[in-house]
Amino acid sequence: MKLAVVGGGSTYTPELVDGLARLRDALPVTELVLADPARDRLEPVGGLARRILARAGHPATVTTTSDLDAAVADVDAVLLQLRVGGQAARERDETWPLECGCVGQETTGAGGLAKALRTVPVVLDIAERVRRANPDAWIVDFTNPVGIVTRALLNEGHRAVGLCNVAIGLQRKFAALLDVRPDEVHLDHVGLNHLTWETGVRLGGPDGTDVLPRLLAEHGGTIAADLRLPKALLDRLGVVPSYYLRYFYAHDEVVAEMRTRPSRAAEVAAMERRLLEMYADPALDTKPELLAERGGAYYSEAAVALVAALLGDGGRGVQVVNVRNAGTLPFLPDDAVVEVPAEVTPAGAEPLPVPALSPLHAGLVSAVTAYEHLALEAALHGGRDRVFAALLAHPLVGQYALAEGLTDRLIAHNREHLAWA
Amino acid sequence: MKLAVVGGGSTYTPELVDGLARLRDALPVTELVLADPARDRLEPVGGLARRILARAGHPATVTTTSDLDAAVADVDAVLLQLRVGGQAARERDETWPLECGCVGQETTGAGGLAKALRTVPVVLDIAERVRRANPDAWIVDFTNPVGIVTRALLNEGHRAVGLCNVAIGLQRKFAALLDVRPDEVHLDHVGLNHLTWETGVRLGGPDGTDVLPRLLAEHGGTIAADLRLPKALLDRLGVVPSYYLRYFYAHDEVVAEMRTRPSRAAEVAAMERRLLEMYADPALDTKPELLAERGGAYYSEAAVALVAALLGDGGRGVQVVNVRNAGTLPFLPDDAVVEVPAEVTPAGAEPLPVPALSPLHAGLVSAVTAYEHLALEAALHGGRDRVFAALLAHPLVGQYALAEGLTDRLIAHNREHLAWA
Amino acid sequence: MKLAVVGGGSTYTPELVDGLARLRDALPVTELVLADPARDRLEPVGGLARRILARAGHPATVTTTSDLDAAVADVDAVLLQLRVGGQAARERDETWPLECGCVGQETTGAGGLAKALRTVPVVLDIAERVRRANPDAWIVDFTNPVGIVTRALLNEGHRAVGLCNVAIGLQRKFAALLDVRPDEVHLDHVGLNHLTWETGVRLGGPDGTDVLPRLLAEHGGTIAADLRLPKALLDRLGVVPSYYLRYFYAHDEVVAEMRTRPSRAAEVAAMERRLLEMYADPALDTKPELLAERGGAYYSEAAVALVAALLGDGGRGVQVVNVRNAGTLPFLPDDAVVEVPAEVTPAGAEPLPVPALSPLHAGLVSAVTAYEHLALEAALHGGRDRVFAALLAHPLVGQYALAEGLTDRLIAHNREHLAWA
Amino acid sequence: MKLAVVGGGSTYTPELVDGLARLRDALPVTELVLADPARDRLEPVGGLARRILARAGHPATVTTTSDLDAAVADVDAVLLQLRVGGQAARERDETWPLECGCVGQETTGAGGLAKALRTVPVVLDIAERVRRANPDAWIVDFTNPVGIVTRALLNEGHRAVGLCNVAIGLQRKFAALLDVRPDEVHLDHVGLNHLTWETGVRLGGPDGTDVLPRLLAEHGGTIAADLRLPKALLDRLGVVPSYYLRYFYAHDEVVAEMRTRPSRAAEVAAMERRLLEMYADPALDTKPELLAERGGAYYSEAAVALVAALLGDGGRGVQVVNVRNAGTLPFLPDDAVVEVPAEVTPAGAEPLPVPALSPLHAGLVSAVTAYEHLALEAALHGGRDRVFAALLAHPLVGQYALAEGLTDRLIAHNREHLAWA
Repeated sequence: MKLAVVGGGSTYTPELVDGLARLRDALPVTELVLADPARDRLEPVGGLARRILARAGHPATVTTTSDLDAAVADVDAVLLQLRVGGQAARERDETWPLECGCVGQETTGAGGLAKALRTVPVVLDIAERVRRANPDAWIVDFTNPVGIVTRALLNEGHRAVGLCNVAIGLQRKFAALLDVRPDEVHLDHVGLNHLTWETGVRLGGPDGTDVLPRLLAEHGGTIAADLRLPKALLDRLGVVPSYYLRYFYAHDEVVAEMRTRPSRAAEVAAMERRLLEMYADPALDTKPELLAERGGAYYSEAAVALVAALLGDGGRGVQVVNVRNAGTLPFLPDDAVVEVPAEVTPAGAEPLPVPALSPLHAGLVSAVTAYEHLALEAALHGGRDRVFAALLAHPLVGQYALAEGLTDRLIAHNREHLAWA
Repeated sequence: MKLAVVGGGSTYTPELVDGLARLRDALPVTELVLADPARDRLEPVGGLARRILARAGHPATVTTTSDLDAAVADVDAVLLQLRVGGQAARERDETWPLECGCVGQETTGAGGLAKALRTVPVVLDIAERVRRANPDAWIVDFTNPVGIVTRALLNEGHRAVGLCNVAIGLQRKFAALLDVRPDEVHLDHVGLNHLTWETGVRLGGPDGTDVLPRLLAEHGGTIAADLRLPKALLDRLGVVPSYYLRYFYAHDEVVAEMRTRPSRAAEVAAMERRLLEMYADPALDTKPELLAERGGAYYSEAAVALVAALLGDGGRGVQVVNVRNAGTLPFLPDDAVVEVPAEVTPAGAEPLPVPALSPLHAGLVSAVTAYEHLALEAALHGGRDRVFAALLAHPLVGQYALAEGLTDRLIAHNREHLAWA
Repeated sequence: MKLAVVGGGSTYTPELVDGLARLRDALPVTELVLADPARDRLEPVGGLARRILARAGHPATVTTTSDLDAAVADVDAVLLQLRVGGQAARERDETWPLECGCVGQETTGAGGLAKALRTVPVVLDIAERVRRANPDAWIVDFTNPVGIVTRALLNEGHRAVGLCNVAIGLQRKFAALLDVRPDEVHLDHVGLNHLTWETGVRLGGPDGTDVLPRLLAEHGGTIAADLRLPKALLDRLGVVPSYYLRYFYAHDEVVAEMRTRPSRAAEVAAMERRLLEMYADPALDTKPELLAERGGAYYSEAAVALVAALLGDGGRGVQVVNVRNAGTLPFLPDDAVVEVPAEVTPAGAEPLPVPALSPLHAGLVSAVTAYEHLALEAALHGGRDRVFAALLAHPLVGQYALAEGLTDRLIAHNREHLAWA
Repeated sequence: MKLAVVGGGSTYTPELVDGLARLRDALPVTELVLADPARDRLEPVGGLARRILARAGHPATVTTTSDLDAAVADVDAVLLQLRVGGQAARERDETWPLECGCVGQETTGAGGLAKALRTVPVVLDIAERVRRANPDAWIVDFTNPVGIVTRALLNEGHRAVGLCNVAIGLQRKFAALLDVRPDEVHLDHVGLNHLTWETGVRLGGPDGTDVLPRLLAEHGGTIAADLRLPKALLDRLGVVPSYYLRYFYAHDEVVAEMRTRPSRAAEVAAMERRLLEMYADPALDTKPELLAERGGAYYSEAAVALVAALLGDGGRGVQVVNVRNAGTLPFLPDDAVVEVPAEVTPAGAEPLPVPALSPLHAGLVSAVTAYEHLALEAALHGGRDRVFAALLAHPLVGQYALAEGLTDRLIAHNREHLAWA
């Protein structure tokens, strides 16, 4: 079994390789290819990957390459974790929206649109190469904005599933709070990527008892603190929002915070430099502690389980993924991409029925889905007007003067990544 | 034919009576009852109503009363144009939201919610009395927020249609710009009350040629100026938004304007005082010029045509009204209330098919429909949490801190009108 | 010795009377007159005042009256603690500025200007009656805005000193933190009323060792928490600002907080109702605990000491008061009123030299002094233009559009108190 | 007479050279040196300078050099018009403050502070070299922020005068409106550089009749439109503010505008590229029309007259310049630098008495002077705390959270120009 990781030079990669090592029974990979145009990153990351597998006695070979077509030859599954434009583009996504008084973030709002515009064409090109190399290969997209990127892939007929670690993170956290095993916790996880609510927390599976009311009663304060939202809000909502909802529910507060300090991208860039130095140390053969602060917790568990299920080697059957809506949320178009629990088999990911979503959340989901539709149009076909329309449609923008200012800035700061600009 | 006007002491009433006089062939009213708890207004308004009809040689009698049950005995149609709490409540709707940085307006946003909470219980009580008096009588609601009030009435099984003068106003304006008769202009008017777009302007009827592109090309500047939106925005949208959309597309600009001057309610109150003085003049037997500045232009035409069609006396068959969605906008629940062209007959208003709405507008419509659902819940069942939920769901609020502050203020300023507070 | 308290029906009064009882040696009052137009308050407050003095064995008589001229006949000193317009006016001061995005507060910013406009003419009329009754009587003004009111009094030649409890409160707090007696703590307290900084904290007197650096090093966190400002700011400033500086240093943060909850005036009004109920209880003969939450701590100590020193019966010689600048702050006009330590004797309050104020604070003091000059002009001579000028000059306004909006609202909400409006 | 222009490669230079040609009688320059590190600009600008002089038959030689010491050898006067960091730094000055909701401008607010920090050390180094070369040479500073830079120069004992073209521009405009010769118009021009008001417009000289009331009555609309401020504001103020006051009086409006479009620096950079192309054309021997749009109108007149007066060759005696306050504005420190009319002679610039400034303006002037003091401290001694203090003191910042965020951004964006960062 051959697995290729596009963006394999990412500092995340040791997290993934650690998972492959720990979960080798679930996913018997024999060949791991790390593909990345950034050769200077491939070497330290590839070296550490080999040492982690060796230490675990894992037999897989690790190859590094900047030749994408070589990487995906005869591949069985491809993980996408690339970042077009790197941390520099991320830093820009986090700053210029602030000039207009809007949250600067690389997956939500205007910054998220910029990332979508940079990413979709690149991902579609990669997917086309994968399909040419092996039409049966699965593509797992971890590259943000996962919802829009997955929709782009599915619209082009690719065998793709979108993956995010928000759900698995909450599952682990809730399991710890409830003092049960993670696999005993089933989440009624409903919405769009980075716009989800846990509307139920069931013990034992989709039909298990809903312990969310108890969880909120006993641990609401802890959960709220993690989300940096007031407990009173969780009590009012009666559900647990994704922490990305803070950009909506507390937009102005977040902007005020962002104004008082430099961007987060600078922090991450510094951390990445330190990680790459560590990786280059030939004595290191485990993922370093510091990596946990990088974000992406449990990504490896989620990814290994998903690929295992897609390739028919078992793995957890029900997983939270990004898939076609197909009636799951009846108020959305069938071809929208939603993030919900799904039965994953070699035939693909089939969404499970989910409880009805309150209008309080459904209205926001509808609005963001409309934005995602327009964002994908802009990513595929370009043009200032399409960028403007997507921004005007976004609930965090909504005003023409802001949309004008953001459009100009988005284009000015991403010109090198926009073929039409 | 007996027609009752609830809120008949309104300064609008002479506009309506003038329409009854001019359009007597379409609607052969024999008895007009003006019902209002404000006796001091009933007298001058009723007197002028009688003189207007007399001058026109119209045979109908005009009665004034503060006894609602007497007013609706044997009535054929009831027009609702009441304002619970009067101009004082309106002034409050226009000011306290500003304390939170939100637009202060009595039909949109937090102020609109306040009006809904005050109005729905009163209207449902009136409707119940109408039904007891004559189960076949039609109720035409002109009281804002028309969408929510109409939904409340329909949910309770009343024979009700919601009416607003935005569409007829645009029809007249476009007809003038195009130099054709108003009845030659058919609008593809789509959305919710006070949240609509003209997505097509057809000559001759629903299947006529769409001249909207020409209209925008030749008169876009004039239309934009009326809406107080930049022409560039109209060019980008390619459709004509209702001027209430300015509260969304230019929210912060509107708030900045509102900050530089006192509320509009004060203006209207002053105008009303002047109007009532004029009405009291026994020599006056026409509606005064000043009334045109009061808003509500063409209300009489729209109302007369609608009642005429509902009572089977002819009138224009296709009219823009507020009715059950029933699939007209496929992305909304069937029981939502939409504002679209409908075929109006004694069996009721049947929405015509409308062209698909762009996601750019559909997302906003979905979000506001969700808000309207929650607003109606709050109006019917009360409670701070329901008010909070409706505000959090509103696209012009969306943030919990704002929703908290607005909730407290809404309740504090409307306590006398909220049975549960 | 006869002492009159104008606004004697205030719920503060028992605090003052408690001080008279405790500090009778310092100030041998024989007659205390509580004057107030609000007769319903005078009775419970006067009753409690008598019981407090009786319990302490204090021989003074307590009279209550709504006849000001009677109250001040042969008086030796008059305390002004009235509130023109009562809590209702305060509530308005705290809300309408928020409509313009500005802090709503009754002593600072636009709300403070409103209070100045309401208060200055009333106070000048009272002072004139006091002078007619006894040209040698001293007037101690505790009515806000103390700086502007004192300037108005001094400009008219009255024997007046302005008093505020901010300095004495900090003196007591610092003494507790330093574990010394309050009278051992001398503050280098510099600035304008409600716009001061403690630039030194000296042990033993004006020439004592400055322990402020130690105080900040050891207790900076506690002090910052009381001020609701970050400790990092205090470290940067190296001085302790009055907590009213928070309205400047954290203006937008305060506005955001005010948006999330109803006004504080409502809270105070509720507390006052409860206090008056308690006062009416004939069994109560001490000031209730609840009064401490009302604000005004140590007011009695400060007031008793000040009157004692002015009347020549001893008392602490150096006190922080509001007096003519007269060169104390060299960058301000001589006739400005500043709040600094002063030597108080029967000849009046003579400001002590103070250390030079950093330009960081001096710039703000200059700007607010200019505002106070214009505010007094507006209070004395009226007119929309003068109100506008004062607002435009205020550092928390500064913009013409805000000044326009605030001017209209100030006038609309205070018309009954503005002779010229 | 040898004149050196530091920053001589600026696209402004042909404006200056044109003035030298036209006004050769006033200022008989024999040698003009254009000094600039940017050699690629020196060539086209120098070439055009030679052709302009040649066309006018002016005998002066024009030298270009990147060697500053060579440039200032034996020089009689030095004009400073450099821009440290070029248009790229300016673009940053115009953008990052917007991230914090503050105006982005290179002479006012946080952007102006950044420019001061970049510029002061460079200018002081240049001045030192000038003094070594010729201790009697005059330095005329046109480099912004002129007030702070001039203060830095004077504090170091340099023979320096600060110059700005705002006053001469208004003089010319008013002369045109009044239909008189410019030299007949004397301005009561009072304040700080870029923070001035024309409080009188006198015909014939400092003692002439003040025609400002007439000017405002007859041409207030035109003047207001130029300033982009409402005429009503000018009527209320009764004086004409500099257009930089718009950043204060309409701060939020300016920020809202800036949010809707990209920065102005981009525009200027494009214009500069076009200008340099034009200058390279050997057929061009006049300043091109386009230069007028670049800003800096009448700079040449002002500069020639000032140098002429300083060097004793005549020229207009009274000119508006930046000089030591020395009691001119009594509420400012003597060592502050103010912008007022001054008698200019070879002994230097002696400020004329000016009418008293209203507290409405004086408060703002005091606050900005305090900021300038702190800004200069930060420019000379560096350190994050000094930058923070200057920002906190600035009336357009004033809040600690904004000051924190701006401080971090200022340092991050200017690190290469800040020796201490």
